[in-house]
Amino acid sequence: MKVLGLVVEYNPFHYGHLYHLEKSKDLVKPDVTVAVMSGNFVQRGEPAIVEKFARAKAALKQGIDLVVELPVVYSLQDAGGFATGAIWTLDHIGVTDIVFGSETDDTELLKKVSKILIEEPEYYRDLLKKHLKKGHSFPNARKYALRDFIHIEDKNLSHRIEEIGSSNNILGVEYLRAINKIGSKIAPLSIKRVGSSYTDEEHRGKFSSATAIRKLIQKGDIESASQAIPKEPFDIILQEIRSGRGPVFKEDVESFFISFYRLLSRDDYNRYYGFVEGLDARFQECSLSGSLEEFLHCVKSKRFTLSRIRRLMYYPVFRFTDNLIRKSNEFGPQYIRVLGFNEKGRNHLSNIKHSMKIPIITTVSLWRKVVDGALKKEMKIDADLLEAQLERDFAAVRFYASLFKYPESRSRCSDLLSRVIYNEEDS
Amino acid sequence: MKVLGLVVEYNPFHYGHLYHLEKSKDLVKPDVTVAVMSGNFVQRGEPAIVEKFARAKAALKQGIDLVVELPVVYSLQDAGGFATGAIWTLDHIGVTDIVFGSETDDTELLKKVSKILIEEPEYYRDLLKKHLKKGHSFPNARKYALRDFIHIEDKNLSHRIEEIGSSNNILGVEYLRAINKIGSKIAPLSIKRVGSSYTDEEHRGKFSSATAIRKLIQKGDIESASQAIPKEPFDIILQEIRSGRGPVFKEDVESFFISFYRLLSRDDYNRYYGFVEGLDARFQECSLSGSLEEFLHCVKSKRFTLSRIRRLMYYPVFRFTDNLIRKSNEFGPQYIRVLGFNEKGRNHLSNIKHSMKIPIITTVSLWRKVVDGALKKEMKIDADLLEAQLERDFAAVRFYASLFKYPESRSRCSDLLSRVIYNEEDS
Repeated sequence: MKVLGLVVEYNPFHYGHLYHLEKSKDLVKPDVTVAVMSGNFVQRGEPAIVEKFARAKAALKQGIDLVVELPVVYSLQDAGGFATGAIWTLDHIGVTDIVFGSETDDTELLKKVSKILIEEPEYYRDLLKKHLKKGHSFPNARKYALRDFIHIEDKNLSHRIEEIGSSNNILGVEYLRAINKIGSKIAPLSIKRVGSSYTDEEHRGKFSSATAIRKLIQKGDIESASQAIPKEPFDIILQEIRSGRGPVFKEDVESFFISFYRLLSRDDYNRYYGFVEGLDARFQECSLSGSLEEFLHCVKSKRFTLSRIRRLMYYPVFRFTDNLIRKSNEFGPQYIRVLGFNEKGRNHLSNIKHSMKIPIITTVSLWRKVVDGALKKEMKIDADLLEAQLERDFAAVRFYASLFKYPESRSRCSDLLSRVIYNEEDS
Repeated sequence: MKVLGLVVEYNPFHYGHLYHLEKSKDLVKPDVTVAVMSGNFVQRGEPAIVEKFARAKAALKQGIDLVVELPVVYSLQDAGGFATGAIWTLDHIGVTDIVFGSETDDTELLKKVSKILIEEPEYYRDLLKKHLKKGHSFPNARKYALRDFIHIEDKNLSHRIEEIGSSNNILGVEYLRAINKIGSKIAPLSIKRVGSSYTDEEHRGKFSSATAIRKLIQKGDIESASQAIPKEPFDIILQEIRSGRGPVFKEDVESFFISFYRLLSRDDYNRYYGFVEGLDARFQECSLSGSLEEFLHCVKSKRFTLSRIRRLMYYPVFRFTDNLIRKSNEFGPQYIRVLGFNEKGRNHLSNIKHSMKIPIITTVSLWRKVVDGALKKEMKIDADLLEAQLERDFAAVRFYASLFKYPESRSRCSDLLSRVIYNEEDS
């Protein structure tokens, strides 16, 4: 039995995603396809454009059989933490094959790189230190260290590091590393992305990037956005907007952030993960900024990338303590939160139910009961860690809804109202 | 030497305030007049319409010689805590007489009431319990208990309790109680307010209430507002508005509150002062409200007045822990923060400097130096409490500035930019 797993954000679902999904199915020929998807906050360190249930529904309409949520303690982490949470979730849920998009379809090359990152040979570590000392950000220092290291092994390969070392692409390497780290038997496959890079902000018709599509929607150019999104996902977005639930953009958190950081002391920042190398002081000094842009550029330096700062901004908000993130990365997600399925997906859940190592939460209001059941079955979960992870997901949903434009919508928190999405049509 | 002390908010300064100031001077014939003024957040549980330095300047223009700040740990407390902080500050700074406005000029009657509240005779306590048990809010239960108690002593007085027991007027009683509590020698005098009650929202020409004036400014009816405000204070407000520093209204904190409360757990609320009798649970349940109005009405009950809830809303924001408030009420303010003075006010400061029991902070950036000096002089201050109180004042200023409409203004925090205001003209 083949279970295809994809790591997605679908923010929003577009033709590039559809292409990747269909190509992956062609390659793996799965019996069932599972996606682990970021919830209301995505890895760029931003709120998703519409909330997770809407995006799960779109995924089900386009051919995913089962959508589970990547807990926010992973979705707001760097590539390493994000991949750890995503791969661990897919492994728990019985995935046999994952296919990820990257700038190269040379999975062997990615494996070679991930091997270096896993084994960290001494010479590689020296190179990394050297480049970090120069003041480069971690992603860049790693890229340069990999280039220098591989150059000695294989001159022909080293020039290709530029394509692998790019901060997007490093995700592929991190997936491989995570598979190795947790000792998973998942077979990884890399396929080349089509269309524009996901950071490309320009509108490029059918294959516009998610960033470009969000910009179009923010500008109110719904017509152009519709060209890049299949009909059903597009209708779901429209429905969300008409109901006053979004679209939400990173600018909508601006005024909250500007007020919130002014209330924190350096000691507060130090309680949270990632405030190292003076970032606590920088956040505090920069908290007097008048806008989000000003804040980001105040904190930013050669050492800290913008996307890292964008993610870190959420850590004091959702209280990502050092302990929480370290434990989450060491022990993995403590639950599977199901957002939606079709008949095939539901059957898959039934099939794996008895061999699960962590509990499956479908009806969220029953979570305590589910956890009690899991503890009785002597699943090896850490109940405190589970509650800490789940509470962050709840907080993320409550907080996200507070960003809606209309007071009437803000009180509607999907976690309390939505049950798991069931897509009958594809059953 | 007579030093007149006034407890003010001047939010904003209007003709009613001017009348009170001049009448008070007539009565006391002071050598110098000192006002202790709420900073950027006032006792109603709201941001002040313009910030403290602007309001201090207005006060100096109108005949106050020295303006000091009531620390925010007092200005956002109920009548009892507010009065404790205010009277203690005035006592520290050498005030001999205070004159406060109330609905009665019968100081003897107020003294009689405050005596009951200080001594709490057993029968009074029983009556209070009885009315609290009926589910009344504390201010109302106290009013009814006083009425019933005094009825036995003096039938003619009991019908006048209605006027004394009103929640505004109880401040007068609390001033008397605070004078007694700290063993101050300040002579208190009550004079009757003129014009409309301060909660009156209607515009009443020259003697409109501060509430009505703020409403006019919020509606953009600057012309009508100007009728109720003397020229110089009015020009100062206009100048603030033109510089983008305000006006700030309670609605400007709405979106922050709506997001912020959703991030707190019941344990969090319990860390702060005043979250008793299930208020922690009510705050948490109501945090899903879509607007401030909805939130207030969700939390409100017969037991909790709206103004109490409005103040409590700031306690998790500025972290008014149980410990901080209890210690502040037990040991009083640990510093005098000078906002402005004229020559006469400055001379008064010089005169009392050597007999001060707590340090005087004029240049805020030097506060650590001032505290070190105070400790060397063996002033009986609690350095931790001092820092905790002062840090709340700083946070209040930073937070207040984040509410300004324009990004350019938000980074201008008066605490960092403004020195103490010196009013030369009146010297």
